[in-house]
Amino acid sequence: MRLLEETLGQITPILSDLADTAQARLDQLTKPQGSLGRLEDIARCCVMITGREHPQVTKKILFVFCGDHGVAAQGVSAYPPEVTAQMVRNFVRGGAAITVLARQLGIRVQVVDVGVNADFASDLSGLIQRKIGRGTANFTHQPAMTQEAAVRAIEVGIALTTEAIQNGAQLIGAGEMGIGNTTSATALLCVLSGLSPEELTGVGTGIHEEARQKKIAVIRTALTLHTLERADPLGILAHLGGYEIAAMVGVYLAGAAQKVPLLVDGFIATSAAWIACDLNPAVKGHLIFAHCSAEQGHQKVLDALHVQPLLDLNMRLGEGTGAALGMGIVESAVRLYNEMATFAEAAVSEKE
Amino acid sequence: MRLLEETLGQITPILSDLADTAQARLDQLTKPQGSLGRLEDIARCCVMITGREHPQVTKKILFVFCGDHGVAAQGVSAYPPEVTAQMVRNFVRGGAAITVLARQLGIRVQVVDVGVNADFASDLSGLIQRKIGRGTANFTHQPAMTQEAAVRAIEVGIALTTEAIQNGAQLIGAGEMGIGNTTSATALLCVLSGLSPEELTGVGTGIHEEARQKKIAVIRTALTLHTLERADPLGILAHLGGYEIAAMVGVYLAGAAQKVPLLVDGFIATSAAWIACDLNPAVKGHLIFAHCSAEQGHQKVLDALHVQPLLDLNMRLGEGTGAALGMGIVESAVRLYNEMATFAEAAVSEKE
Repeated sequence: MRLLEETLGQITPILSDLADTAQARLDQLTKPQGSLGRLEDIARCCVMITGREHPQVTKKILFVFCGDHGVAAQGVSAYPPEVTAQMVRNFVRGGAAITVLARQLGIRVQVVDVGVNADFASDLSGLIQRKIGRGTANFTHQPAMTQEAAVRAIEVGIALTTEAIQNGAQLIGAGEMGIGNTTSATALLCVLSGLSPEELTGVGTGIHEEARQKKIAVIRTALTLHTLERADPLGILAHLGGYEIAAMVGVYLAGAAQKVPLLVDGFIATSAAWIACDLNPAVKGHLIFAHCSAEQGHQKVLDALHVQPLLDLNMRLGEGTGAALGMGIVESAVRLYNEMATFAEAAVSEKE
Repeated sequence: MRLLEETLGQITPILSDLADTAQARLDQLTKPQGSLGRLEDIARCCVMITGREHPQVTKKILFVFCGDHGVAAQGVSAYPPEVTAQMVRNFVRGGAAITVLARQLGIRVQVVDVGVNADFASDLSGLIQRKIGRGTANFTHQPAMTQEAAVRAIEVGIALTTEAIQNGAQLIGAGEMGIGNTTSATALLCVLSGLSPEELTGVGTGIHEEARQKKIAVIRTALTLHTLERADPLGILAHLGGYEIAAMVGVYLAGAAQKVPLLVDGFIATSAAWIACDLNPAVKGHLIFAHCSAEQGHQKVLDALHVQPLLDLNMRLGEGTGAALGMGIVESAVRLYNEMATFAEAAVSEKE
């Protein structure tokens, strides 16, 4: 709990005063003013987040946190729970979508077991083992995690992120793998946003309408069972979340504390981002929402947060795949800001 | 004219029969079916365009065609005409937006003077000199180009593209620079789409409403002056287009003839793409529309073409900047298709 509290205490608002300085440079670059659109917004953001006149974002890291969910026993996913552990092996062997994208985009990937219901050989090359529990409890019967376990999982995210930044990471993303975790994220987001299970429940990994109705019923059961205080994000997280969601909360907190731009992936990552913002509202300015997921509730949640995602490619995979693509766009934005010639440098005439 | 006719004769429809084969592989990759969204569409497209079970798109080239426009004398742009030549120098020196993006994304850029109203030293390193004319004529008085000159400009695009493909290019984009060329593209697209100058005329490099009204009047004058046959795309191009727009037409024709996926940039590139599709409708399947420009008419034109762009980042710079970002996304799509493990390879359980 001490690491969490310390981290929360280190987070400060982004330096909004630097927006004008950044825009002044953007307006001197050899292009019509404003013509880079969202890329200019992102460049300004990165200046305000880092506090640097010339932010650098080429050293990119993405964490993939993996954990199982007790609620998977309710048949809320199209895939059996053992897929979580199987995908962990696929991540470390480089066969998963996120690992393919990371190779292309020059992103370092760290795969972290924070709550998978399986044992991995201690030498499974490339897996970071920080298991807090073997899957969460089934939140239709009891809280998914104790609050102490949820905090420990957050602190795993904080510790790994802080270490990565000490080792040079300049742009950070997080993704997740956990069969059942759209159910967990949907339940969290119902409480956080006030939207209903009907509005937010989607197809996850690809269930049919009958199964979606069951998933809605499961979420309703949980929301009825637990007494949740809207003002208690840690309690909400512990009751309905997952170890991997908690670890992502830690990434956003530590990244914000260290003034590093953070890419938020899709629906599940957004539930973690919302918790992080509730823990400290100054986190929000450090977040760049990478994409709008095809998961039906994501657009509604992004609207509720008043944020606009960079990409809309109808993806709904998780793993950090949207965040990875978003990192490429953010790198483009910052490189343009840093590397383009000014009108004066290039001897190009300005607007008449 | 012979090269153009030969190229048109070589273009065949994409191999739609391969869509099922491609989808069958996509459905075996370790992800929920369909969860990569638009990236799956793009991967299927690249299979159908190339006719290859495993298309490769890592060798990427982007042409930036530069040309001046006689209509710039009407005061339709926020920038003076000499900016075209100044930007040519900025391109070859690496200070322009497209050159920054190309460095990041591993795209080879070829800058081509196809109609700039300036002389460049014959040894201006990195500039490909294929000047057809020193700017077009002012199309409010006479046709912008002779049909013969328009064809020669198209053939510059064909020749450079064919050569690039012979040298290994696997993914091709085109961009442009030319003060006054949103006016030219808008006039072209009015004729091609049947939409009105009011609907399609935007702010270009950043003019105010008064200047936009003048731009609309200029386009109206041209549309009244010239007798254009909707069935004569070469005539439309010659009367209202530009050398750089014609050269882009050539890129799309040659790329389609050689079965290479093509990225279409923004508003101006779309006018060239439409001409290419009118010259041979089988071109269209080879085109991937990279982004929706902030130029006001672009979305309407994309709708009229029944195509959906990959990105929507409120950009309106041209130069191929949208195409470059799109190339990164296309490369992601094809790498995922080629490099992800299948369920069997990774020993991951399939959907229940």
